[in-house]
Amino acid sequence: MITTDICIIGAGPVGLFAVFEAGLLKMRCHLIDALPQVGGQLSEIYPQKPIYDIPGYPAINAQTLVDNLMEQIAPFNPGFTLGERVESLDRQEDGSYQITTSDGTAVHCQVVVIAGGLGSFEPRKPEILNLEQFEGKGVAYMVKNPEQLRNRRVVLAGGGDSALDWTIFLAEIAKEVTLVHRSDSFRGAPDSAEKVVELAKQGRINLVLQSNITSINGNGHLQEVTITAKDKSVTTLEADNLIPLFGLTPKLGPIADWGLSIDKSAISVDTTDYSTNVERIYAIGDINTYPGKLKLILCGFHEAALMCQSAFHHVHPNQKLSFKYTTVNGVPTF
Amino acid sequence: MITTDICIIGAGPVGLFAVFEAGLLKMRCHLIDALPQVGGQLSEIYPQKPIYDIPGYPAINAQTLVDNLMEQIAPFNPGFTLGERVESLDRQEDGSYQITTSDGTAVHCQVVVIAGGLGSFEPRKPEILNLEQFEGKGVAYMVKNPEQLRNRRVVLAGGGDSALDWTIFLAEIAKEVTLVHRSDSFRGAPDSAEKVVELAKQGRINLVLQSNITSINGNGHLQEVTITAKDKSVTTLEADNLIPLFGLTPKLGPIADWGLSIDKSAISVDTTDYSTNVERIYAIGDINTYPGKLKLILCGFHEAALMCQSAFHHVHPNQKLSFKYTTVNGVPTF
Ligand SMILES: Cc1cc2nc3c(=O)[nH]c(=O)nc-3n(C[C@H](O)[C@H](O)[C@H](O)COP(=O)(O)OP(=O)(O)OC[C@H]3O[C@@H](n4cnc5c(N)ncnc54)[C@H](O)[C@@H]3O)c2cc1C
Ligand SMILES: Cc1cc2nc3c(=O)[nH]c(=O)nc-3n(C[C@H](O)[C@H](O)[C@H](O)COP(=O)(O)OP(=O)(O)OC[C@H]3O[C@@H](n4cnc5c(N)ncnc54)[C@H](O)[C@@H]3O)c2cc1C
Repeated sequence: MITTDICIIGAGPVGLFAVFEAGLLKMRCHLIDALPQVGGQLSEIYPQKPIYDIPGYPAINAQTLVDNLMEQIAPFNPGFTLGERVESLDRQEDGSYQITTSDGTAVHCQVVVIAGGLGSFEPRKPEILNLEQFEGKGVAYMVKNPEQLRNRRVVLAGGGDSALDWTIFLAEIAKEVTLVHRSDSFRGAPDSAEKVVELAKQGRINLVLQSNITSINGNGHLQEVTITAKDKSVTTLEADNLIPLFGLTPKLGPIADWGLSIDKSAISVDTTDYSTNVERIYAIGDINTYPGKLKLILCGFHEAALMCQSAFHHVHPNQKLSFKYTTVNGVPTF
Repeated sequence: MITTDICIIGAGPVGLFAVFEAGLLKMRCHLIDALPQVGGQLSEIYPQKPIYDIPGYPAINAQTLVDNLMEQIAPFNPGFTLGERVESLDRQEDGSYQITTSDGTAVHCQVVVIAGGLGSFEPRKPEILNLEQFEGKGVAYMVKNPEQLRNRRVVLAGGGDSALDWTIFLAEIAKEVTLVHRSDSFRGAPDSAEKVVELAKQGRINLVLQSNITSINGNGHLQEVTITAKDKSVTTLEADNLIPLFGLTPKLGPIADWGLSIDKSAISVDTTDYSTNVERIYAIGDINTYPGKLKLILCGFHEAALMCQSAFHHVHPNQKLSFKYTTVNGVPTF
């Protein structure tokens, strides 16, 4: 069991910055994100795009902003659980919470901060017969730990950057790599696409174009993948792992079932402290709503600051909060 | 008469960033500040100190933040009136406003945004007989244009950085420079103090220590300055200009008289759009107050963004506001 002061659900820019504001008030944080990396929409959707409305940055690359935020919060040494979705919140008798993830990780905390953005990023699942039956038994929608694929026979599906990048990467460590793609042109970066074609020419991967995976089978664990080409011809391939990479799409998911007051897929909050209708649960960033709300990164930063002033009283109930400027007081760590 | 969409009172970090948010919504801005430079408290009080709680900057020098904000808003080409205090707001029949400064500059605008921080920075005035009578007639509390002091006989008073820095600077261009200081040690940077002592030794300036200016006289314009030493001896000096530099202190000033609802020296606003009780007047940054308010730079940035969404409807009453991400839409200028 992980124990912390504040458990932050969502490691997007707003969840990350909340660690800094909490740290200034001597509160420790643990972050949980369904994605295998931090940064939320910025790292998942537009890492290489410049953002122009971060105050004080005439332009900043989205991933650079995330990297800078990680550097800014490093002094407060937050904990991270990545690649796991928060499934449930359980209120304890003393008012504290226990949070449990999809993988069974448990976190005990005094305050819950939901910085869940548009929801947890969930994989778009292709239509493949028996697909869900083999999830966790050979089928996965993201690569959390590539080492687990060493010397395995891996089939990837998709035509975007993730599919291309992982094909190139796994060519080095897997026993056999097959990339199945429905068309014969790729959406991903042209140089990655070239590299994949080159690897196929060299016989180091199998490239199956104009085709879809239509069903999978196995005995408890994945064993074979059936591919149907546009010309209707069908092939069956032996495989240990199947990784469909058709992008991720955010879904509010379990958050909708926690008794919070929800308005158009967002959590209603009080702008005094961005608290929800449930004691000790706050919501900041894209996930919340209030009159005037803008889904902007800079707004989430402000919400994080005000939230922490209020959360402080739950974490340190007998202490007086004194407001100090960082310029005057520095960044004193624990 | 200057004509603009939004007149922003106060060119601190929050007023500056408001220009950017306004620009994204195709609104032009004119800024007015009582100080001769932009940057508000940051440039006036702690330009060389690092700030640690600007999101995305693990540390940033206050003046660098101001410089970056100036670069960020440059594409929208705002107007500036510096070194003048806004004295009055006059509502026009059509709901627009005319703003008038201490120097008589007039600005016509559709919307007024008060980003006045702790108030306009006003000089601390020493007790000198007849002082106010010669204001603008030889007496000034800041140096707006040093060229006006070329070949003049200038007396400076004070022992901080401004007094030292201007003494060094004016030694080059004035006919005669006298620095009067009440003690014999300086509060300003040690190397500036050394330089001043050195200039005095070389006979390039007069340094009068352990003394105060007690009265001034002249016929319409300043002509003489009377100095009383700690040992009670009195000297009289001929002078064209007297510049007492005892620091600036922020005063709410005329803002208190504009019919705005004021709560503990701050303007009460509605957090939906940071509007005041008076139509078309908004207040953002340190100058406003609402439940949960924190006087932080990052909070003012958020307030500026929400304010602009609302101001848009006064500036472009017949247009529909469409919200676009800068990452997607860039920073289209006028
Ligand atoms: C193409 C594009 C361009 C944009 N351009 C700009 C711009 O120029 N300026 C700007 O200010 N904003 C822009 N945005 C919006 C900006 O990205 C969001 O405002 C910002 O990402 C919100 O941050 P957040 O931390 O609230 O949420 P997110 O970044 O969405 O992060 C939330 C995280 O929470 C996780 N999560 C949710 N639920 C769970 C759960 N149950 N368990 C575990 N994890 C969970 C998600 O996986 C996600 O990683 C843009 C967005 C897009 C898509
Ligand atoms: C020593 C110190 C350290 C600080 N450290 C931090 C920190 O680490 N982090 C943080 O977030 N904040 C910090 N702050 C606070 C921060 O400086 C303020 O929150 C910020 O300056 C507010 O910006 P603003 O634009 O609202 O107002 P200001 O910076 O105060 O600017 C307001 C401007 O309006 C002008 N003005 C007012 N009235 C009039 C008028 N009638 N006519 C013309 N001009 C007028 C003033 O001259 C002034 O230049 C610190 C402050 C101090 C003093």
